[in-house]
Amino acid sequence: MNARPVLLPAAVAADSLTQFRHLAPLVHCLTNDVVQSFTANVLLALGASPAMVVDPGEAAQFSAVADALLINVGTLERDRADAMLAAVNSANQAGTPWVFDPVAVGRLTFRTEFARELLQLKPAAIRGNASEIMALSGLNIQGRGVDSANDSLTALPAARELARRIATVVAVTGEVDYVTDGDRDWAIPGGDKIMTRVVGTGCALSAVVAAFCALAGDRLPHVATACHVMALAGGRASVQVQGPGSFIPAFLDHLYHLRAEDLV
Amino acid sequence: MNARPVLLPAAVAADSLTQFRHLAPLVHCLTNDVVQSFTANVLLALGASPAMVVDPGEAAQFSAVADALLINVGTLERDRADAMLAAVNSANQAGTPWVFDPVAVGRLTFRTEFARELLQLKPAAIRGNASEIMALSGLNIQGRGVDSANDSLTALPAARELARRIATVVAVTGEVDYVTDGDRDWAIPGGDKIMTRVVGTGCALSAVVAAFCALAGDRLPHVATACHVMALAGGRASVQVQGPGSFIPAFLDHLYHLRAEDLV
Amino acid sequence: MNARPVLLPAAVAADSLTQFRHLAPLVHCLTNDVVQSFTANVLLALGASPAMVVDPGEAAQFSAVADALLINVGTLERDRADAMLAAVNSANQAGTPWVFDPVAVGRLTFRTEFARELLQLKPAAIRGNASEIMALSGLNIQGRGVDSANDSLTALPAARELARRIATVVAVTGEVDYVTDGDRDWAIPGGDKIMTRVVGTGCALSAVVAAFCALAGDRLPHVATACHVMALAGGRASVQVQGPGSFIPAFLDHLYHLRAEDLV
Repeated sequence: MNARPVLLPAAVAADSLTQFRHLAPLVHCLTNDVVQSFTANVLLALGASPAMVVDPGEAAQFSAVADALLINVGTLERDRADAMLAAVNSANQAGTPWVFDPVAVGRLTFRTEFARELLQLKPAAIRGNASEIMALSGLNIQGRGVDSANDSLTALPAARELARRIATVVAVTGEVDYVTDGDRDWAIPGGDKIMTRVVGTGCALSAVVAAFCALAGDRLPHVATACHVMALAGGRASVQVQGPGSFIPAFLDHLYHLRAEDLV
Repeated sequence: MNARPVLLPAAVAADSLTQFRHLAPLVHCLTNDVVQSFTANVLLALGASPAMVVDPGEAAQFSAVADALLINVGTLERDRADAMLAAVNSANQAGTPWVFDPVAVGRLTFRTEFARELLQLKPAAIRGNASEIMALSGLNIQGRGVDSANDSLTALPAARELARRIATVVAVTGEVDYVTDGDRDWAIPGGDKIMTRVVGTGCALSAVVAAFCALAGDRLPHVATACHVMALAGGRASVQVQGPGSFIPAFLDHLYHLRAEDLV
Repeated sequence: MNARPVLLPAAVAADSLTQFRHLAPLVHCLTNDVVQSFTANVLLALGASPAMVVDPGEAAQFSAVADALLINVGTLERDRADAMLAAVNSANQAGTPWVFDPVAVGRLTFRTEFARELLQLKPAAIRGNASEIMALSGLNIQGRGVDSANDSLTALPAARELARRIATVVAVTGEVDYVTDGDRDWAIPGGDKIMTRVVGTGCALSAVVAAFCALAGDRLPHVATACHVMALAGGRASVQVQGPGSFIPAFLDHLYHLRAEDLV
């Protein structure tokens, strides 16, 4: 039985961000059509380099040289699924870590079956909302859309089960984010409700999780730092903006200026 | 013969927006690649939930549970057309209203033939510029691009004819927007010329029209309110910005803060 | 042997921008999925009209009536490559100038072979970073991602060779941009490092180069003016913003307000 999730230690997060800035990871993003530009801008603002390469042959080539790979099934189509499989298999052969964002899995058939296939290919981490993580874990779910009807704490047991079963790190995000490897849990509060009125904040977080998975060492604190960095920049931006429109540039600016010292 | 179009009564618009905020419609958007992110952010700012599901099987599944469906043919391809037909047929079976945005119809062959097919599938509403509505109605058109060479009032007779013929509501938009069911017309002034220098304002309006079509009751005032809400937020944003770049965040902020009382 | 590149004369640039504003070119953009919205907004801010038409049959139809065509292979797929070939062949038959942005060519196989095919179809201009231009010219290259590991001056000999060989204008861009037709070179300084932290500034520049290729007369100064306009607006925006997020709206605003007099 797990103890209560504890807060991510500030020094751990600061160390992780320092490593991140030093590596400036190149992240291959196979993500949905709606959030590509925002995802790229989030990675660039943080100091990483995004690239979206979608032809199956090229996707396999590129995953082998990238520092990390993101798979997001938000606007999945048959052709793109083939490119994703080629990229994941190539990443696994090359030792490139890959991260899975199971958008709306559990509610739509094609992506749910595809997710089952992906889970066997050893993702380094999974980032989803409560409904998605519960669906992946095989529990019952509710809800119609892409946003979660359950809160993240409710889904923590499912996240732990999933993390243990496939030996990965799971981030279940919401008002508070929880990151677990099945044995250890960390809670990351922060962020702001306005972030749910901007498309792609969750999808971009998954890309940032992928980027942090490129770092050496224990993966759990790196994934937790990814969540922390986004929540911190989001919280800071939210207090100075007029609404979701002005949030977007302010959020990117805060990501750009974030220093390791800010996390301590 | 129709009388002169009259202004949308403020109380009608306020009532419609109140219903909208209460329902928070889930809108399935099959729209063009250029405007997906902006469309999603417009719907989120207004309090609706967007989702883009593009695989034909999943699109059919999702249309059955969404509150409304948008079909925009701006970057039509054969595969996407198949997904659109699957989604529209599923929407019709489930009673989900769907809205058609006939981008550049009349000037490009594939989409014009596809539009003919779609018109037989009973859209709840159609939103286009003057050239597009005149093309759909079978009148002569001019122009090369995606922007209209005709003004919206010129196209009002075509809009009325189209609305009557297929029993729908037609919004023909421009400097002044006109909304008609063939018998009754409403004129919606407002907005600002700067909106023509920002990509996707028309396409996002069509998504908002779809969202308002999810409301119960007479559809004409709901479609007119969709136009009014966008024109009002656009007009307010335009007076405080430096250009089309700063217009985007300001516009989203105004959509977010708009209250039913503002419409009275 | 070429002399040192000289600065673009201000009066030449002012004249080119005046022509541009008068023509308001309609630009058919077959570009990558990540930058479509930003590219469209850049063209709109400058006074041009963008349109993205991707079905092969429609792409061929549209290229024949557009003022210019952009081909950007950033997210190339087999189907899109077919549409690009159809569009380029139609453009060439109609006399529509087309511009090539060889994103990541030289590092990924499918697009490199496709680039070889495109080079035989007489682009009016090519815009790329140092690595891409050196790859196109057949020289050795380094680097993994979409950003250049070489600086633009290093690539100038390759740019000249390429321009001469296929009788085109080549813009190799970086901290300083160089534009050459193989005989004459112009250097365009300006811009700001923050532009490398915003996705699509290079891709949008290629679209602007395409739009300027629609102007009559000697093409070299028009291509150089495209680079100058973007560098000038970028430099102006950079001094007043907090980071890459606030850069985006400020940059679009500066493009919108730029007058020919500002270039003198």
